[in-house]
Amino acid sequence: MRRKITGFSNPTVKYLRSLRDKKHRRQERAFLAEGLRLLTDARQTGHVPQMLVMASGRDPHPLLDALEHDVMAAGGEVIETTSDILAKITGKSNPQAVAGVFAEFDTTLGQIDRTAAPIWLVAQELRDPGNLGTMLRTGDAVGAGGLILIDDCADPFSVEAVRASMGAIFTQRIARARWEEFLPWLRSGTGQLVAASLREAVPYRGAPYAAPCFILVGNESQGLPEGYEAACDLRVTMPMRGRADSLNAALAGAVLAYEVLAGLDEPGGPT
Amino acid sequence: MRRKITGFSNPTVKYLRSLRDKKHRRQERAFLAEGLRLLTDARQTGHVPQMLVMASGRDPHPLLDALEHDVMAAGGEVIETTSDILAKITGKSNPQAVAGVFAEFDTTLGQIDRTAAPIWLVAQELRDPGNLGTMLRTGDAVGAGGLILIDDCADPFSVEAVRASMGAIFTQRIARARWEEFLPWLRSGTGQLVAASLREAVPYRGAPYAAPCFILVGNESQGLPEGYEAACDLRVTMPMRGRADSLNAALAGAVLAYEVLAGLDEPGGPT
Repeated sequence: MRRKITGFSNPTVKYLRSLRDKKHRRQERAFLAEGLRLLTDARQTGHVPQMLVMASGRDPHPLLDALEHDVMAAGGEVIETTSDILAKITGKSNPQAVAGVFAEFDTTLGQIDRTAAPIWLVAQELRDPGNLGTMLRTGDAVGAGGLILIDDCADPFSVEAVRASMGAIFTQRIARARWEEFLPWLRSGTGQLVAASLREAVPYRGAPYAAPCFILVGNESQGLPEGYEAACDLRVTMPMRGRADSLNAALAGAVLAYEVLAGLDEPGGPT
Repeated sequence: MRRKITGFSNPTVKYLRSLRDKKHRRQERAFLAEGLRLLTDARQTGHVPQMLVMASGRDPHPLLDALEHDVMAAGGEVIETTSDILAKITGKSNPQAVAGVFAEFDTTLGQIDRTAAPIWLVAQELRDPGNLGTMLRTGDAVGAGGLILIDDCADPFSVEAVRASMGAIFTQRIARARWEEFLPWLRSGTGQLVAASLREAVPYRGAPYAAPCFILVGNESQGLPEGYEAACDLRVTMPMRGRADSLNAALAGAVLAYEVLAGLDEPGGPT
């Protein structure tokens, strides 16, 4: 269906604006993704928005045509509005902006098939949406299956995290769990839990990684609680030639994930 | 010297506010760093601010006492002001905030002693101050000597870049140069120029890195110009299991820097 909306008080406008807010995203079980590139990434990975929003008179673009076609074919809505209303929805005054509404994904541990990928990233209390997006990108780059968010993490469906993921939010499985749920789930099947640690640990380089390898990264400022580290199968340490907390969580995760990837790939390696 | 300032129109307030702006930083050859932690990092690496600013009646703190002592001993100024004026200077309404003014460092290539470190990071047209700060942190972590900024990069002395560097701005040498200056400088001495490349390249893992190794990272969206890549001694490629542009420049730089560090450290390695 195609609709034109010209009034600020239209309920659809209110709905769209409300999705910038975590509480409303949870209620509506939906999230916003912005930008033609991100929406095209979504489409290419089989995710079609329920609703597509743009300004009337926006410049035509073949990728936008393709998106509109898919949205209509899937029974979704294409909404044309004024550039003022669009600015209210996106928070930016770019009349070329395009936004899409997607149904929130299932984020239970139950939907994760651990045998589907050799690497899984696990983040504990990751508070920065940008770091969360970066971890999704890293996961995509190393061929990970997804990102498991432990305890109180930033919302992966926030506009900031979705943007920072550069489309990886649509390629990576995402699960949310408390540590008390995660550990029994992990131990109910095969899987090696590895932590980057500043405590007693073996060098990360050439450590005996095994698939499926779950790489656990801690909070940006506190790192992992000691008990969480103790529950790991392997604790590894990275050289820090400078100040103790030189690397941020997302960066340490990326360096470690690439090391695991290389370790699993090596002939005679531990897989 | 210790001064109290209570008027918004005080020239010192204007001066401090102007340092949030690139043009004025250049004119004044000074920059702002904010937060007791960052200022303590600076102090511990021998950088004492010319001017220290805080709100009158701020909670006492032993690290702040130490800072004040060093600033006074070095002939600098300690400025107490109202929390309203402080908020104008820092852009945040935190009455516990502390800001320091530092003299801009020499950023000519001439001050770089390439033999002082085995690794140097080189960024070309890096536009995001956060990425720039992250590269400084990475450099600190791998024991790099510094970061060389090629062509039009974000300003390393912006409040955002300084903050994102988490203190590494004070441990890493920083140079700015056009490519046309950088390449002859590099070739005037020993040094291997390595690029992370999506074009024809050898696997990054176990490539023949040699110190001093200059790791060249390109712009966030365009990557390196072809001619720049062609001028490198070594082009390496990292596995990308997902979408082509999964990793951002700063992240790719970190993964590569850790690989170079390991390569240079290995017994029988190429150093």
